[in-house]
Parts: sequence; structure tokens; C-alpha cells
Amino acid sequence: MSSQIEPIETMAAELHRLPGIGVKTAQRLAYFVASMPLEEVRSLSVALWEGRKAIHFCSVCGNYSAGDTCSVCADPARHNGQVCVVRDPRDVAAIERTHEYHGLYHVLHGTLSPMEGIGPDDIHIRELMARAGSETISEVILATNPDVEGEATASYIARLLKPMNIRCTRIAHGVPVGGDLEYTDEVTLLKALEGRREI
Amino acid sequence: MSSQIEPIETMAAELHRLPGIGVKTAQRLAYFVASMPLEEVRSLSVALWEGRKAIHFCSVCGNYSAGDTCSVCADPARHNGQVCVVRDPRDVAAIERTHEYHGLYHVLHGTLSPMEGIGPDDIHIRELMARAGSETISEVILATNPDVEGEATASYIARLLKPMNIRCTRIAHGVPVGGDLEYTDEVTLLKALEGRREI
Repeated sequence: MSSQIEPIETMAAELHRLPGIGVKTAQRLAYFVASMPLEEVRSLSVALWEGRKAIHFCSVCGNYSAGDTCSVCADPARHNGQVCVVRDPRDVAAIERTHEYHGLYHVLHGTLSPMEGIGPDDIHIRELMARAGSETISEVILATNPDVEGEATASYIARLLKPMNIRCTRIAHGVPVGGDLEYTDEVTLLKALEGRREI
Repeated sequence: MSSQIEPIETMAAELHRLPGIGVKTAQRLAYFVASMPLEEVRSLSVALWEGRKAIHFCSVCGNYSAGDTCSVCADPARHNGQVCVVRDPRDVAAIERTHEYHGLYHVLHGTLSPMEGIGPDDIHIRELMARAGSETISEVILATNPDVEGEATASYIARLLKPMNIRCTRIAHGVPVGGDLEYTDEVTLLKALEGRREI
């Protein structure tokens, strides 16, 4: 088009890299940014760049952290012997939102996936084993996703930890709260039945 | 939460200012940005800030422009006597996407809205009148939105231009292409009937 405005096109192209931001949404956002006060755009731009630069990985658990150690690992009250193993930093955020877990985390940064050529050495399993050998860990809660890769990863880690006399648990599968039995797939329903508890 | 990662929260808060980006989406985007290579975040951040700084208003039509005059106004081939009046720069982009309009534009940057206290002096009507007095304009196409404010603005401008012997036209109202008669509201259907043409 002859009338494309180059700065807007550049902004839209960059915004389009973000997940869930399609070409049309990116264009709409770019036009919005064009209409924003300079100061607000500066603040957005700085937050992204300075924010990204400030993000490190916690040297203990692998979670995102503003410093060398994340706020969970730095909190003595959370060293209660529990370590929750998750795939991504965003899974840590999800579990933190329950406000009911008071232990530590270990972020694998991936799950085992032979199909994609991701083996044990490609994710942070070695680091977990090192922690299991040096920290006092009473329970490892395997909270990888309830999919094929997540299950395989959980089983693999459990097999490694069992000989070390560390209790391994897996988060429960079942019907999501607020969900509808009619629309729940059979595998989930089966797991919900298997995992039934006395009330 | 004790485990909030401050740079991610700051990014999420800034992204949440964008239209259509809710709290959850902003959080998801912030986590994605945290996982992006530094170079890509820098490129996004620079595109937003430099892009916003590079955007000016065309001194002739009021459209967004990288220079003093937008690419449409700078193109002699488009000075064909037609001026299309729209509310926003993004409406210019929408009409350009048809690839069938070859005239100029005039961006009002708003529509008359007594309810919100927006009068003729608050939008770029004076600038349009100045152009009507100095440029050779044969037709003004009023392409404001088909809502109450858009209609009122179109009528108001038409009343001002008629005495200057400039032809004023209004974009057609009717059933959108690909739309469904059954789900078309009555006012639109009425307009579609009124605007019927020989085939």
C-alpha cells in the first residue's frame, strides 16, 4: 500500500511476534500506541527492555528472579522440605496463586520429549538431583502438566529419586472445579474415579 | 504474593494499558517477553519508542505520517478532487485496504458529540473548511462511522460545504457483504432497502 505509515508498520510487525497477537490485533495495538502520550509509550518501552534485562534465573530453583536467588528460595520459612517440580516459571506463578503451597520449587525448563529430541540432559533434572543430594528434601511434588510428556517426565524423576528415599508425589488428576461431568473426557473421568476419596 | 517477580509485574502492568489486553493476557505476555532473546526484546522496545517518536500528523490531512506530509498527500496522482473525511487515522488504513479509493483524506480526530462536550472546534472541521477554500475539491465523501455521532458530524459538515458548491456524498449503509439478513438489525435493513439500486 502506498499509504502505509512506516513506524506503525514496524511497531505492528514487532507486536505480532507476541503470542496470541495476530496481524490485525498487532495493527490495532500499533495504532493505539501511536495515539498514546509519548511519556506512556516511553514507560512501556522501558519496562519491556529494562524488565527483560533485569530477569535472571534463580541459581537454586531455576525460576525467574530479579536477583541471583528468587524470593521463594530466599525465604527461610519456605525451606520446609517440600520441592515442587514444574516445567515453566509461569507454572510457579500459577501455583503461587493458590496461596496454599509453602515449600520450594524446581523449574525444569521443559519436559522430556523423545519426539522432539528433548532428553534428560536438556532439562534441569541434573540440577534437581544435585539439590536432592545436598538439601534436606522430604517430599518432591511432581507438578508437570497432565499430558504425555509431563507424565513421562514425572515418572522418570520419580524413578531417580526413589532410591534416595525421597517421597515422590504427583498432583491429582480429576474433574476441574466448576467443570461439567458431561463434558469431561473419559480419561479424566477415569482418573477422577480412581482418585476418589472418603468424604 | 511473596514470589512475584518485580520486572515481570512491571511489564505486565504496562502491557495491561493496551486495549484488549486484560490482566491475565498481560501476565502471559510478560512471561513470554521474559523468555524472549534479549535482542528481540530490544528490537520490540525500540520499535515502540522510536516508532511513537517518529509519528507526526500530516500537516494537510491530519493522518499519521512519518514526515510533515503523509504519503497520500505527497502523491500528486491522488490530488483528483476527492477528499474522504474520516474520524481516525485507522479509518484511513481501512479505506486504503480496499485499494479502490484514489483521492485524498481528511482526518477529523473525533466526531461531534454534545453528550461528551465535543463541539465543531474540538475536531478538525476548521482545517477541512480551510482546505475547501484553497484546494480544488470536487467531492467530499463523508465516511464517518454509521452511528449517531458519525451521522451528526456528516450532516454538519455537509451543511457547511453545500454553500461552497462542493458535492457532498455519504458512504452507503446496507447489509455487510457476507452478512446474514436474518441477523441484520432493522435500521440497517431499512437503509439497505432505501438504498436499493437497479441490477
